[in-house]
Amino acid sequence: MPDIKAALAENARAVDATLDQLLPLHNDVDTRLLEAIRYSTLSGGKRIRPFLVVSGAELFGVSRSFALRAAAAVEMVHCYSLIHDDLPAMDDDTLRRGMPTCHVKFDEPTAILAGDGLLTRAFEVLADPATHTDPRVRADLVVELAKAAGIDGMVGGQMLDLLAEHRELGMAEITRLQRMKTGALIAFSCEAGAILGKAGDGARHALRAYAHDLGLAFQIVDDLLDVEGDADVVGKATGKDERAGKATFVSLLGVERARSQSDMLARQAVEHLAVFDATADPLRALASFIVERTN
Amino acid sequence: MPDIKAALAENARAVDATLDQLLPLHNDVDTRLLEAIRYSTLSGGKRIRPFLVVSGAELFGVSRSFALRAAAAVEMVHCYSLIHDDLPAMDDDTLRRGMPTCHVKFDEPTAILAGDGLLTRAFEVLADPATHTDPRVRADLVVELAKAAGIDGMVGGQMLDLLAEHRELGMAEITRLQRMKTGALIAFSCEAGAILGKAGDGARHALRAYAHDLGLAFQIVDDLLDVEGDADVVGKATGKDERAGKATFVSLLGVERARSQSDMLARQAVEHLAVFDATADPLRALASFIVERTN
Repeated sequence: MPDIKAALAENARAVDATLDQLLPLHNDVDTRLLEAIRYSTLSGGKRIRPFLVVSGAELFGVSRSFALRAAAAVEMVHCYSLIHDDLPAMDDDTLRRGMPTCHVKFDEPTAILAGDGLLTRAFEVLADPATHTDPRVRADLVVELAKAAGIDGMVGGQMLDLLAEHRELGMAEITRLQRMKTGALIAFSCEAGAILGKAGDGARHALRAYAHDLGLAFQIVDDLLDVEGDADVVGKATGKDERAGKATFVSLLGVERARSQSDMLARQAVEHLAVFDATADPLRALASFIVERTN
Repeated sequence: MPDIKAALAENARAVDATLDQLLPLHNDVDTRLLEAIRYSTLSGGKRIRPFLVVSGAELFGVSRSFALRAAAAVEMVHCYSLIHDDLPAMDDDTLRRGMPTCHVKFDEPTAILAGDGLLTRAFEVLADPATHTDPRVRADLVVELAKAAGIDGMVGGQMLDLLAEHRELGMAEITRLQRMKTGALIAFSCEAGAILGKAGDGARHALRAYAHDLGLAFQIVDDLLDVEGDADVVGKATGKDERAGKATFVSLLGVERARSQSDMLARQAVEHLAVFDATADPLRALASFIVERTN
């Protein structure tokens, strides 16, 4: 198995370099918007979604420069969603990755526009000829990312999450919420490599199954960290869900069962990768990393 | 010349039907997000941008169903920008098209997410095979819309507009602000038809020149309506720019020169269409309508 921490760090450097190049500061008077965008996008982070894109693309021999652009687009969408979710009208968070959130560091209108600009740029990057020679691949990437990020995916999931504060959710509803809010973008991250590599149905199906279990494991661990984590290590406020009276996997299952459930899901995720050779080892190692992480 | 009001109304009906079909209410418990999206998108409006898309596409014999989908995508982006611009943290508007704005009718988080969802859906619609058989055309539409709507276009323009409240802008800066905030999307609306129809450079250049002058005329009239218009007729609060101490074309030129400037630009816009036959008459009629409108 590869050293996953080293692999993640190496990948994060390459993704950050790509983001840096795709989000250049204009040599202009009004740099505030791009400063806010760069502040929230180039602020560290493990870059797990980009790692999935790049590792998935490697399975099909996709050009690394194509994969990195798609990875950067996914990260832009992830970062935009964090900026908007952190807004006072939404989750009202002041800390993210151990730093002031975008609207705290800049202001609310700048944060709203920074999110809008990032989301828009992500689609521009995917549709650009530099992301793939085949325009059908580029159009497919746009459609699938839009589905994952939109009304039936991330945006819809965040809406459900907000409504959840006023309702008691059961296991089926929490699972659906997670699948939309965080699972859909993780699934797209895995699928992007298959789209870029024009993979067959078998490989695509295996990756989708891996993504499904990985995404669920990821969310359960997130809920566990909110209960058990140290804010300094996690990099954002903890104990929020309980204070908000929100149902989570942990509130429904309890800490121990939630832990064993996430471990089981991670093992199951790896089993779906049986169709791939050692090229899929980074994806296998990531599954273990996800459930063992402390931030 | 065609009856422009009748042509606009007929086009608006077709665009509304397309939007209605592209933004269906799910038969589900959580319809709130889609209700907010439909409230802000299917609320009347002259549909000037969609009219530009459809009329531009007619110049090149583009299938009407393709043109209507592209037109709907542009209107989604326009409506998302209105929702976000109206937010308390931004322009803090309570009235739009004579109705409560999205965050007033629903709430702030719903309005933020409705805008995010609309923007995302627009790109999904453009990249979908139903919008054009040629994937290169679809990818091009995505790239050009993203450029028009993003950091160097609409989003960047709104940022400049917010910063303008704290600075004295001159004519060059106001013109640049307008070109980004409203001009870029109007230009894309004209260019979309050319992209869909794979138009040659000459036709594309003529349309771009038309869009440039039309967009500027449109904004000057908007500024005039803010000074001279009746809120009941305009459908939104008037006198805002002056109260905010914002420089506008009218504050810089005065009412009379602003009026003659917009008339001159509309005539000039029509002159750029000389390369087209009578098929361009709707675009010619629109230029006059733009400067004569009262809302």
